Amino acid sequence: MKLWQKENTTTSEKIERFTVGRDRELDVHLAEFDVLGNLAHAAMLESIGLLTSTELADLQKELKAIYQLIQQGEFVIEEGVEDVHSQVELLLTRRLGDTGKKIHSGRSRNDQVLVDLKLYVRDRLTQVVQATEALFQVLNARAEQHKNDLLPGYTHLQIAMPSSFGLWFGAYAEGLIDDVVQLNAAYRLANRNPLGSGAGYGSSFPLNRKMTTQLLGFEGLHHNVVYAQMSRGRTEQAALAALASLAATVSRLAMDVCLYNSQNFGFIILPDDLTTGSSIMPHKKNPDVAELLRAKTNRLKALPMEVTLVLSNLPSGYHRDMQLLKEILMPAFDEMLDCLDVATFMLQHMQVKPNLLDDARYDLLFSVERVNALVMQGVPFRDAYRQVGKEIAEETYVAPRELQHTHEGSIGNLNLPEVTQRMQEELSRFEFDKVARALQNLLNA
Amino acid sequence: MKLWQKENTTTSEKIERFTVGRDRELDVHLAEFDVLGNLAHAAMLESIGLLTSTELADLQKELKAIYQLIQQGEFVIEEGVEDVHSQVELLLTRRLGDTGKKIHSGRSRNDQVLVDLKLYVRDRLTQVVQATEALFQVLNARAEQHKNDLLPGYTHLQIAMPSSFGLWFGAYAEGLIDDVVQLNAAYRLANRNPLGSGAGYGSSFPLNRKMTTQLLGFEGLHHNVVYAQMSRGRTEQAALAALASLAATVSRLAMDVCLYNSQNFGFIILPDDLTTGSSIMPHKKNPDVAELLRAKTNRLKALPMEVTLVLSNLPSGYHRDMQLLKEILMPAFDEMLDCLDVATFMLQHMQVKPNLLDDARYDLLFSVERVNALVMQGVPFRDAYRQVGKEIAEETYVAPRELQHTHEGSIGNLNLPEVTQRMQEELSRFEFDKVARALQNLLNA
Amino acid sequence: MKLWQKENTTTSEKIERFTVGRDRELDVHLAEFDVLGNLAHAAMLESIGLLTSTELADLQKELKAIYQLIQQGEFVIEEGVEDVHSQVELLLTRRLGDTGKKIHSGRSRNDQVLVDLKLYVRDRLTQVVQATEALFQVLNARAEQHKNDLLPGYTHLQIAMPSSFGLWFGAYAEGLIDDVVQLNAAYRLANRNPLGSGAGYGSSFPLNRKMTTQLLGFEGLHHNVVYAQMSRGRTEQAALAALASLAATVSRLAMDVCLYNSQNFGFIILPDDLTTGSSIMPHKKNPDVAELLRAKTNRLKALPMEVTLVLSNLPSGYHRDMQLLKEILMPAFDEMLDCLDVATFMLQHMQVKPNLLDDARYDLLFSVERVNALVMQGVPFRDAYRQVGKEIAEETYVAPRELQHTHEGSIGNLNLPEVTQRMQEELSRFEFDKVARALQNLLNA
Amino acid sequence: MKLWQKENTTTSEKIERFTVGRDRELDVHLAEFDVLGNLAHAAMLESIGLLTSTELADLQKELKAIYQLIQQGEFVIEEGVEDVHSQVELLLTRRLGDTGKKIHSGRSRNDQVLVDLKLYVRDRLTQVVQATEALFQVLNARAEQHKNDLLPGYTHLQIAMPSSFGLWFGAYAEGLIDDVVQLNAAYRLANRNPLGSGAGYGSSFPLNRKMTTQLLGFEGLHHNVVYAQMSRGRTEQAALAALASLAATVSRLAMDVCLYNSQNFGFIILPDDLTTGSSIMPHKKNPDVAELLRAKTNRLKALPMEVTLVLSNLPSGYHRDMQLLKEILMPAFDEMLDCLDVATFMLQHMQVKPNLLDDARYDLLFSVERVNALVMQGVPFRDAYRQVGKEIAEETYVAPRELQHTHEGSIGNLNLPEVTQRMQEELSRFEFDKVARALQNLLNA
Repeated sequence: MKLWQKENTTTSEKIERFTVGRDRELDVHLAEFDVLGNLAHAAMLESIGLLTSTELADLQKELKAIYQLIQQGEFVIEEGVEDVHSQVELLLTRRLGDTGKKIHSGRSRNDQVLVDLKLYVRDRLTQVVQATEALFQVLNARAEQHKNDLLPGYTHLQIAMPSSFGLWFGAYAEGLIDDVVQLNAAYRLANRNPLGSGAGYGSSFPLNRKMTTQLLGFEGLHHNVVYAQMSRGRTEQAALAALASLAATVSRLAMDVCLYNSQNFGFIILPDDLTTGSSIMPHKKNPDVAELLRAKTNRLKALPMEVTLVLSNLPSGYHRDMQLLKEILMPAFDEMLDCLDVATFMLQHMQVKPNLLDDARYDLLFSVERVNALVMQGVPFRDAYRQVGKEIAEETYVAPRELQHTHEGSIGNLNLPEVTQRMQEELSRFEFDKVARALQNLLNA
Repeated sequence: MKLWQKENTTTSEKIERFTVGRDRELDVHLAEFDVLGNLAHAAMLESIGLLTSTELADLQKELKAIYQLIQQGEFVIEEGVEDVHSQVELLLTRRLGDTGKKIHSGRSRNDQVLVDLKLYVRDRLTQVVQATEALFQVLNARAEQHKNDLLPGYTHLQIAMPSSFGLWFGAYAEGLIDDVVQLNAAYRLANRNPLGSGAGYGSSFPLNRKMTTQLLGFEGLHHNVVYAQMSRGRTEQAALAALASLAATVSRLAMDVCLYNSQNFGFIILPDDLTTGSSIMPHKKNPDVAELLRAKTNRLKALPMEVTLVLSNLPSGYHRDMQLLKEILMPAFDEMLDCLDVATFMLQHMQVKPNLLDDARYDLLFSVERVNALVMQGVPFRDAYRQVGKEIAEETYVAPRELQHTHEGSIGNLNLPEVTQRMQEELSRFEFDKVARALQNLLNA
Repeated sequence: MKLWQKENTTTSEKIERFTVGRDRELDVHLAEFDVLGNLAHAAMLESIGLLTSTELADLQKELKAIYQLIQQGEFVIEEGVEDVHSQVELLLTRRLGDTGKKIHSGRSRNDQVLVDLKLYVRDRLTQVVQATEALFQVLNARAEQHKNDLLPGYTHLQIAMPSSFGLWFGAYAEGLIDDVVQLNAAYRLANRNPLGSGAGYGSSFPLNRKMTTQLLGFEGLHHNVVYAQMSRGRTEQAALAALASLAATVSRLAMDVCLYNSQNFGFIILPDDLTTGSSIMPHKKNPDVAELLRAKTNRLKALPMEVTLVLSNLPSGYHRDMQLLKEILMPAFDEMLDCLDVATFMLQHMQVKPNLLDDARYDLLFSVERVNALVMQGVPFRDAYRQVGKEIAEETYVAPRELQHTHEGSIGNLNLPEVTQRMQEELSRFEFDKVARALQNLLNA
Repeated sequence: MKLWQKENTTTSEKIERFTVGRDRELDVHLAEFDVLGNLAHAAMLESIGLLTSTELADLQKELKAIYQLIQQGEFVIEEGVEDVHSQVELLLTRRLGDTGKKIHSGRSRNDQVLVDLKLYVRDRLTQVVQATEALFQVLNARAEQHKNDLLPGYTHLQIAMPSSFGLWFGAYAEGLIDDVVQLNAAYRLANRNPLGSGAGYGSSFPLNRKMTTQLLGFEGLHHNVVYAQMSRGRTEQAALAALASLAATVSRLAMDVCLYNSQNFGFIILPDDLTTGSSIMPHKKNPDVAELLRAKTNRLKALPMEVTLVLSNLPSGYHRDMQLLKEILMPAFDEMLDCLDVATFMLQHMQVKPNLLDDARYDLLFSVERVNALVMQGVPFRDAYRQVGKEIAEETYVAPRELQHTHEGSIGNLNLPEVTQRMQEELSRFEFDKVARALQNLLNA
């Protein structure tokens, strides 16, 4: 079997590489959460008499030392150690001997990785929400700044009615609120405690699951232990579905930027930082950054389907397949955060061209204004519509360039404060402070 | 061009069939919502002086008559009429002449269909949530009924630890709560008023959008008119993503049922209603209903991707592409409701086999109990684990069949009341009553 | 259980509706293929002594009568009859009594529907290939017609280098060849005989599977009976993957058309048949047909994933889930054929604007020509590139409007005959004639 | 902007990281193909007088030196160098000065990366086809070895009819042939020359594209230069669609293995190398390798959709988005090759349990045999079917354990030589030798 042997590795090395995969590299990102889970579990074990208070104190001391190691970027999973849980246990056992072993009582690697992943997803969603808020603020500021800079509004890619950069920036800002609503649903799925579910069938130890729920700052617990295990995969799926929604917003924004940057539109100017030249065309300034933003966010939209494919038609109970989901989930958070950063930067530095609608080719944008003016004079809508159509055909139409849009959310009344207030309300649902306090208490215990 | 001509149709018939597609058939499902939107829009137009109070009264009378027609199933979109909006306007104009035309002031078909779709999605999500609650109740009742009927628990499809039908039914019940959390996010995206956004760029009429927001019972409005238009597609996407999540729960349940019904597992008995025979094997009782439940819910999981593909890389502004989304969205709601109904029926009538774990081949399920018993006697976990491994290898292992699981969510303590209470809390977030009252008021005005 | 009962149907009616679904409607499209399969199976049964020659003659006579019924559009699946196979058997039994029953010997509904689907897919792929060829010919003709009409060529949506309508039409023509290559792979998967595989485990009858293979014009047989059954689903998957590829070509073409039709590009004019107006903007001519073409083909790209989701992680052996695939497959063929028809019509009637590159804003398109002219004079490429960049910056650059592209596939040398010849070679691989002859012989036997 | 700044990088570093991404790492895999493309392009330039024969000789010498460097694993893309093309050009320029620059005449980075990718995909598909053949041979060998070891055959996961390990192994072998058919379509799309298409609009140089086509061993060229550029993305898409098809075969096989390895089936025994234990259950031997094989191949099935999402609704012409496709494509080939290796190993070492059907619970598998025996005695099929149903109900049924399946592809006649011959025919279509010879000549020139 040629291929199998081509790299001069033994069978067991091959198989190990196949099974371990990128676990060691990815698990490092779980390390801080594994320590937090250990701290909560240890405190609970002591409360039900499975650890002495001295053992607990020893474990807390060592776990905090490991936590510090992680914060300093010095935590590694050693060669031959399978995963982050084993590495942490190994460090504890080296220092504390049998006490280090005892911490695994009433726990399986299944609920240990489950709780790590819940804490990880909760943390990364928090970062994503914060980066989304940063982009929101930039969009809103640009909307205010350019509320009087008109822009052609399109339907069917045909010029349709007057729009403005205020409306355009503001639209994406408001869209991010709906993304935050969906991120919140994902966050709430992540914010529940699976610890104590063991391998998915619970434990004969008299565990106090409410206690670990509170210590880790979870909103509540996954009561049913079989369901706690079932939440593996769907926590990831929900998070990626929320990222996909956010990615779709950013992707559409990037598509607009690429189009508006084309000479045939010519609505915006991108800074040199965000464009590149061509190897054969000396005149080119290509919007590579916007294009990559579009591509990367479009790709993110596929990831919920990847998770779905891995999980589909698996009967209930843990399967090793679920381990693979880390490879999908973790790079997605990094990519999303990068994209939000770059989008925020692009939005800050993009220049807007003024007076676009003075160009005669945009005259017809104002035809609805003309229709509505007639309606306000008492002409029934359908008749006014026909009259203006006739004026255009007979070339007697004159564009009424004065806009008087006053209703909520229109060109003349962007409702930016109302939109900002709504974002604040949605953000407050997360109760990030409560979580931060719980984790601080745990680390100070 | 052979194919083009094969059915003896003219070009314009061909093109019309291609563009109208299933609109006429699907739009009937929007009719009641179109009338509600018209009632709100008319009342608002009167409030800003674009309709007289007599005109409003006439319009309200006729719109209510049309609503009754719809309720009686007698509303049709006539041959040659393009869509539901045109049909309603036609009926109004037939009765009221110019007054019927005036109702289109300050509105485009774009925001008209947007508001119809928002109301439609809100209504169908309400039905889905109610059907989900019905399934939840059956699952919980079965969990209570079978809390003492043990079942092998699997990991890796290998027998692992004791589980119970109580845990199994209860797990799916609790899973539905997370589905309701995701349905709520989709519901909130649908529950915002786009009316007044016109073709996506607002109107020069002094529309009162807060008024229509309140009349239609929306939680709030899509402020920015460009964003209101952008919500087309993403409302559908969010709804389908929530259905996909719910479908995944039902699909996994159906997979378990198919497996447990196999002679090699033999854990459940399906009623004759839910099985079929074979055309060549006289002994077969096939779980066709569970299989179709699995297939239909698996298929539903693809639909968010269909919407994504239609929307991807479309610049901002309306495109006719969005019209196609109705063909994806509307059958999905029907399919989901059917699947929930059938799942509920199946769960009610499925029989459970008692005493499954008395079979000697399941002895090893109890090995963790043995390990934990040793731990409770003071043996460190890792050592206890090794000892029991040795007992098994040396065939001295005796399965300790008495289970004493007491912690939250374990076999002995299913937490069904807690789970039920959580579901009630999640349901109360929808405020279905508030919506119902608003619509009632609108119809009684 | 409210929802379940709302339509006053009995349980069994509900379940039947759920299980039968759209089978009766969809199975009508399989009827002609079911008859062909029956004719081949009957002839084979006679050859191994399981039918007498008189019985065969009777069956052939009645089957041909049914075939005629189908051709006349008069074949229906009667109320209470489950599927097309039962309906055909019912008609035979009504006329021939026990002889009608005998035809089911050595066959299961599983391989019966398998062979029907293979013949159906083969037939529909044939139609798709022919419609693709029609579009190819129109594209090639337009390329020849407009080989001298220049068009801006874009990279990154930035104007880049001179292109032409000849290149643009011709590119899509050549793209269709690669689609035909992929359609051929799908066709070959469909063009294999599963008959004789029974329920997926073969038969104890001494069936002659080579004989039915030849009678039905298949390229060969699925030898292994377990694999013949496994081909269920993957035949559909392969066909839909090939359609998705073709749909991607059409979708991209439609996107170009929508963009080129925008006033900001203004490269083409669509006939009135293919545009619509707006309900509020009297000046609009929207490219609805191109947009729907784009949307429908984009949607088609999702269908392989739908099939994948239904099939994923199903163990080997038939599952009822596979029945659902008809609902995905059959409308897809209709949609694809409609889209090809409409695309062909659009391409025939689209007008092209001449002299586009005379506009000064396209001057920079010719910068590479200038660079290359310098290179031909002996300047190293990188230096020539820098010099032209300098000319542009210093506004001394003059666009060299004379193009002298002569190499294969360039503006001045479109290679249309070579491309046409390649298409013919790919088409000849299908051997459609061989299949047509076999089926004719079967119907004349 | 907090996040943006968190790593103390400057804007330009951030943007560079965002745009370069994993290009430098991935491009190393393109290096050997970039050299081959350079060799062909240089020879062609000399033939049309754009290089002297001395310059060509110099370039060939240095390019071969670079090729050797690559073969020895010593080629790196230096810090600050953007991509593989720049690195190769840099090495040439360092050694040859102006001559090194001249090689870029008549070429753009667009067609340079296109040809690299075509050669890369062709090479990797070749490896995949060879690994598929290796798996095919093992499956066929196991089928022959176990042709008499019976296995329950299932439909609907219900025991149905007798099958055998011979049929089961053989089915997957035959399935791989259809995968090879689809791989061949993808291979043919990759096996066409895009060189000379420049940035997608050709060149004013009198390039000889037929010459480079022949030198690089391509089947033919992409004539139309706009289409050559359009093939970017669809080459990758076609390759990934073919891998997805192959992955589906392996995934289903892995699902069967996981199920058959469950104690409730117990049909096979996996070697210790391929199983792992549990951290809390001392009796477990989990089929992790088969599960990961299932998960990884299921994940591969999503990749065509990732590519589709990146490409959807991009107008014609190059976009930077396409660059991202390398990140999807390249790891997929590695993953597929790994999975094929591991699957082959697993299939070689899996043990099969004998005499499975002696267990009384499988008696009903033989009921069709009983029905068919009655038919052979002259009883009409439908009547025989009813009689056996009655025997089963009245418990008078006796399983006729002697099987006499003789037709093509049945238990008693697996057709393994015919299946092997078909595989050979499909493999011969690739003409791998022709390609190998061309590349050898190019390197020896």
